[in-house]
Amino acid sequence: MSAAARLSRLRTYDLRFPTSRELDGSDAMNVDPDYSAAYVIISADDGGPEGHGFAFTIGRGNDVLISGIQAYQELVIGLSVEETLADMGGLWRRLVHDSQLRWLGPEKGVIHMAAGAIVNALWDMKAKRAGKPLWRLLAELSPQEIVDLVDFRYLTDVLTPRAALELLEERFEGRERRVGTLLQEGYPAYTTGPGWLGYDDEKLVAKCHEAVSAGFELIKLKVGADLEDDRRRLRLAREAVGEHIALAVDANQRWDVAEAVAWIEALAPFDPHWIEEPTSPDDVLGHAAIRARVSPVAIATGEHAANRVVFKQLLQQEAIDYLQLDATRVAGINENIAILLLAARFDVPVCPHAGGVGLCEQVQHLSMFDYIAVSGAREGRVIEYVDHLHEHFVDPVEIVRGAYKAPSVPGGSAQLREDCFPRFAFPDGSAWSQAHAEPTLTK
Amino acid sequence: MSAAARLSRLRTYDLRFPTSRELDGSDAMNVDPDYSAAYVIISADDGGPEGHGFAFTIGRGNDVLISGIQAYQELVIGLSVEETLADMGGLWRRLVHDSQLRWLGPEKGVIHMAAGAIVNALWDMKAKRAGKPLWRLLAELSPQEIVDLVDFRYLTDVLTPRAALELLEERFEGRERRVGTLLQEGYPAYTTGPGWLGYDDEKLVAKCHEAVSAGFELIKLKVGADLEDDRRRLRLAREAVGEHIALAVDANQRWDVAEAVAWIEALAPFDPHWIEEPTSPDDVLGHAAIRARVSPVAIATGEHAANRVVFKQLLQQEAIDYLQLDATRVAGINENIAILLLAARFDVPVCPHAGGVGLCEQVQHLSMFDYIAVSGAREGRVIEYVDHLHEHFVDPVEIVRGAYKAPSVPGGSAQLREDCFPRFAFPDGSAWSQAHAEPTLTK
Repeated sequence: MSAAARLSRLRTYDLRFPTSRELDGSDAMNVDPDYSAAYVIISADDGGPEGHGFAFTIGRGNDVLISGIQAYQELVIGLSVEETLADMGGLWRRLVHDSQLRWLGPEKGVIHMAAGAIVNALWDMKAKRAGKPLWRLLAELSPQEIVDLVDFRYLTDVLTPRAALELLEERFEGRERRVGTLLQEGYPAYTTGPGWLGYDDEKLVAKCHEAVSAGFELIKLKVGADLEDDRRRLRLAREAVGEHIALAVDANQRWDVAEAVAWIEALAPFDPHWIEEPTSPDDVLGHAAIRARVSPVAIATGEHAANRVVFKQLLQQEAIDYLQLDATRVAGINENIAILLLAARFDVPVCPHAGGVGLCEQVQHLSMFDYIAVSGAREGRVIEYVDHLHEHFVDPVEIVRGAYKAPSVPGGSAQLREDCFPRFAFPDGSAWSQAHAEPTLTK
Repeated sequence: MSAAARLSRLRTYDLRFPTSRELDGSDAMNVDPDYSAAYVIISADDGGPEGHGFAFTIGRGNDVLISGIQAYQELVIGLSVEETLADMGGLWRRLVHDSQLRWLGPEKGVIHMAAGAIVNALWDMKAKRAGKPLWRLLAELSPQEIVDLVDFRYLTDVLTPRAALELLEERFEGRERRVGTLLQEGYPAYTTGPGWLGYDDEKLVAKCHEAVSAGFELIKLKVGADLEDDRRRLRLAREAVGEHIALAVDANQRWDVAEAVAWIEALAPFDPHWIEEPTSPDDVLGHAAIRARVSPVAIATGEHAANRVVFKQLLQQEAIDYLQLDATRVAGINENIAILLLAARFDVPVCPHAGGVGLCEQVQHLSMFDYIAVSGAREGRVIEYVDHLHEHFVDPVEIVRGAYKAPSVPGGSAQLREDCFPRFAFPDGSAWSQAHAEPTLTK
């Protein structure tokens, strides 16, 4: 690229998939999601590869996130492409700590997710320009380069830059071997496909059988709306999958502390692999109290944890057994690297949240990078998988025998196919304006 | 009002005051704020009083909040005026737990502040229709009516509806006496006017003298950018105000834990009344660690605490000596009542954040209600005051000998004067389009 090249254009798209028509994705809190992307494409004036990124939402309010992304436009347009892509840590600080925009968080909710969409779009641009899939680009960074991506503000009481550097240097040896293993075996996945709360028993059982046939060793069910329903569905699922397949359950923030403890105790006989989001994602102390009282049942959370400071506390307080980061909840790749480092520091396995639209595509890069350069391990770790909306991506995930195959296409895999834009633009795309003529758009 | 009356119109206004030109409001993190209001007016089709509310921001991104407010429009328009105003607790749940919009938080940042603007606008409408200032409307509610306003989800491990009811019933007696005291003496204020970081030493000293003459007994200084500057400014302020005036300091989230402890120890000889926002507003454990290590120096925080669940934990963890709620950060009056109840349960005094634009006007109602019906006390409690932008309000605060005078005009005091709309609309208002012709708009 030319040294004078500038980031010259930022385009946003409010894209929504009418998933609520089939109750795919329904759970105790999210009863009618229309999976959506507040989508951004960033271009440079040198005609080189563009960057694609987005934040995931579930319908109403996707336009608010679009407005958030646009608020960063003036901070991004005109920046040197070369300097920006060479200092992604500096870019992150510039966006997240903007002296006026930070008031809208700070570092949480719409404005933080919007920063993440932009950060991820620029990582996509960087990986495409390097001709590498994002996981490989990240995995080839030196320990010091990785440390430079992270903002350690508010983390130094548990993790200093020096301690992070030492951790990364310790795991430097063996990277090549792990790349080889990853290319050969992929990264383990689990599936949430069978367990949506809107599915009837027959569909639940059929999908459990499918999941086992496809090679998954962990299946997740949504719970929390009605205890007797939960027990019946867990019994049916257990009968369908046999003894050797693990079953996790997800309450999607449904309970208060005492209610969580009672409900989990009632589900404990079904040997859940973990209980996910038992209560408010902000309630670090609540999670810790629940975990202490239901031990040895494992607690998982993270898809709604607002930022690295919340994750820091979940780890400090020994509130979780599994950390479930999300690709588009926090401010993008840089903050997720901070979260991977925190998890490694506390030796807690990271099992990312995915599903939605494009979350599988994005989050796989983080887990693969984690395996190669940060935790150095895959044991006890799985990436969520839902067989849903992948057909719309230029580089969709590939699942082989229950494992994510490492992407080989340059970029971060967030790019949607051209035909999505006229179909799923909200409210004028054909999927919305011709809703009655075209009742079932999702598989 | 007619039983058939409906909420029929929701208008939004992006209003910004060019305060950065004078460095009023500057601190270690917010170096150039343009005080702004994401403003909403809700009307009914019966021609009765409208409701005015807003969320406060500091400039860029005010439009994102406007977008957030508009996202709730479809949930509000068409509702029965009578039913809505009679069940403000139900309204709150309907907005905050909307199954799609909650994904953008949940309960934090832009979407939560937007819900708060709407909730507060409807409280303004309700108080105007009742012909009462908001503090009085609230203070005349029965204990059960107050409990019904609060969503206890995620709070019941420390405060159940029954415990809240008992607390309110205990303080029921004496309400009339406290109303009398309030009308006679007002509610104590402190001032941040002298202490902005952008002011030079001469202005600091002059404004300290002014504050003492005006009857304030507590003055707050911004700190955290440079330790030697902080020490010099605290020494100058102490010389200016004498021994009997208290000095608080505000670090605006500037420090990590270890840095906070060291900096606070260096400032301790100046006997600070409290240290405000020493670190990330999300870091409950960090605040607790700092407080434990700098004891007996007092710790205050809350203006950026995202919701009642964060406040619950700050109290559970004994992380704060003073709780500083904000009128427009959480989801409005209802959630602030939950926070007042939590503070009373833990016997921690509430000293609200104010300043900005219209925060003094709004928050005074909460403290007065707290005094009459919840905590039953004013001891150790003060409301922040900054002499700034009040001239733009229809019912501006009145400070008499260092105390807020109880408002007598019906409503919640958030309503801006008509002439503000053409002047401060962004970006087309005269204050912005004629910036060079009119250099100093703020006092």
